Amino acid sequence: MGAGAVGRSVAELAGEYGHTVVALADSAGSVVDDGGVDVAQALDNKDTVGSVGEADPSDALGAAYDVLVEATPTTLGDAHPGFEHVRAALETDRHVVLANKGPVAERYDDVMALADESAGDVRFEATVGGAIPAIATIEGLGAETVTAARGVLNGTANFILTRMAAEGLGYEHVLAEAQDLGVAEADPTFDVEGTDAALKCAILANVLHGGGYSLEDVSVEGITGIPGSALDMAAEDGRTVRLIGEVREDGSVRVGPRLVPENDTLAVSGTMNIVQFETEHAGRLNISGRGAGGPETATAVLADVGRLE
Amino acid sequence: MGAGAVGRSVAELAGEYGHTVVALADSAGSVVDDGGVDVAQALDNKDTVGSVGEADPSDALGAAYDVLVEATPTTLGDAHPGFEHVRAALETDRHVVLANKGPVAERYDDVMALADESAGDVRFEATVGGAIPAIATIEGLGAETVTAARGVLNGTANFILTRMAAEGLGYEHVLAEAQDLGVAEADPTFDVEGTDAALKCAILANVLHGGGYSLEDVSVEGITGIPGSALDMAAEDGRTVRLIGEVREDGSVRVGPRLVPENDTLAVSGTMNIVQFETEHAGRLNISGRGAGGPETATAVLADVGRLE
Repeated sequence: MGAGAVGRSVAELAGEYGHTVVALADSAGSVVDDGGVDVAQALDNKDTVGSVGEADPSDALGAAYDVLVEATPTTLGDAHPGFEHVRAALETDRHVVLANKGPVAERYDDVMALADESAGDVRFEATVGGAIPAIATIEGLGAETVTAARGVLNGTANFILTRMAAEGLGYEHVLAEAQDLGVAEADPTFDVEGTDAALKCAILANVLHGGGYSLEDVSVEGITGIPGSALDMAAEDGRTVRLIGEVREDGSVRVGPRLVPENDTLAVSGTMNIVQFETEHAGRLNISGRGAGGPETATAVLADVGRLE
Repeated sequence: MGAGAVGRSVAELAGEYGHTVVALADSAGSVVDDGGVDVAQALDNKDTVGSVGEADPSDALGAAYDVLVEATPTTLGDAHPGFEHVRAALETDRHVVLANKGPVAERYDDVMALADESAGDVRFEATVGGAIPAIATIEGLGAETVTAARGVLNGTANFILTRMAAEGLGYEHVLAEAQDLGVAEADPTFDVEGTDAALKCAILANVLHGGGYSLEDVSVEGITGIPGSALDMAAEDGRTVRLIGEVREDGSVRVGPRLVPENDTLAVSGTMNIVQFETEHAGRLNISGRGAGGPETATAVLADVGRLE
């Protein structure tokens, strides 16, 4: 479900990973073929006539699939319609792999309750840090041995802060540049106000603490109010500013601009993301990589598909 | 099997991860109890009378175990006696988790042939980069989509290079300091000549290319010949020296001192390790953390135990 940048890439790469796409849907239509959808043709249809196929979008949920990949846009609150797609799959004992953050950031407990009643499992590596294996690493360590998590979880905000510091330019100027480059969207609110990073932190908190978190539990401050002079002042002290999301040891979750040493592991550049875990027995673990992008995020989706039994 | 720093920690932490230790052996003796070994008592015995127990070491292989943890010292060539322990477990359809690099660096194909005939699986996350989830990350990405791997895989050598650069001291002086701190062993050959890093690279190459590699396939150069002046010269150019192990895209494997930018992701400090993967669809992924130490490596062993079905 979903044929944006991530959904497209999942469909395009699925064959390479040994999977068959039996249905593909966007918001306007779908194509279903139990023998295997012609992905190139479907995506060509989307580019030319606006939808992957002429069937109703919901027809995709009637296909003979094993794993539902939920890659529709992230929505807040009730996480509609992603949540309903997840429910439809789990209620028919199918697996779900999410790229859509909404269901696991906003309705984690509801999703897990459905999974408990289902023969299907839910995985969501792609929702936090794109290609970075954050969730799998927590699983490997054991959630109860990870005492805290923090990181740079939004590439757009990080790109803007990196450019502001490197070029001594103001926020509005760099935002316009980022929009020209396609790094920021026309409406950048979701990224620059910290919402996207906050959703990822809520997901991490849910994994670390067994649920109970949603966006409203996260204290959020974005980067729109940071003057260039603050970055200059930081630089004089050998520091820089990064939008850091944290799940702290006391269970509190916050996102906001923080001063970090210029050479600190957390001070990744440009659109890179990093996740840092504090562990009970293994010290600090850092994982950095591309936090967004179609093929990058699709890689995380397909890794999850591979982890399903 | 093995009650050195790693074996001890595995035994001590096993209960926290929900496992029971039914046998524990060192080179001098063993203790076996199908109801659960008294780990604290066994380790106390080792400290006071030299062995965990009075039974023959090989008696441990007769215990009613599900998973053999092979944590005896890494040996080269035939990888004796670790390889024989692996064989004994697999031939009786038990799982094996290795902290000992020998069997998978020197006899990977032999180990995998045994695993193919067994109902037991073999895992070996702990053999590369301690707490760093290098192998699990390759599995998640799919080995065929990882085009190259490189990293800093020996904390002792990295500590020495970091101190030489920071303090302007010579190799012999810093080595003595590292030995005083317990970071380098009395005989540091294995670490400073690059052998340890080369074994880890052979293991990574085996995972990425489906076997065929051993230590003799790795081109190895250590750090003993690096004069302090080389580090000074590097610093003037904004660079530093790191002992880098690489599995290159053409399948060649090498370990040697390389110049890297001072602020480069690869230029981790002190005893930290880092693994960097180049991927076909997800760009570059970096994972850094503690590459050695009892509890750190035990965490990787116990993560592997958790991944077994």
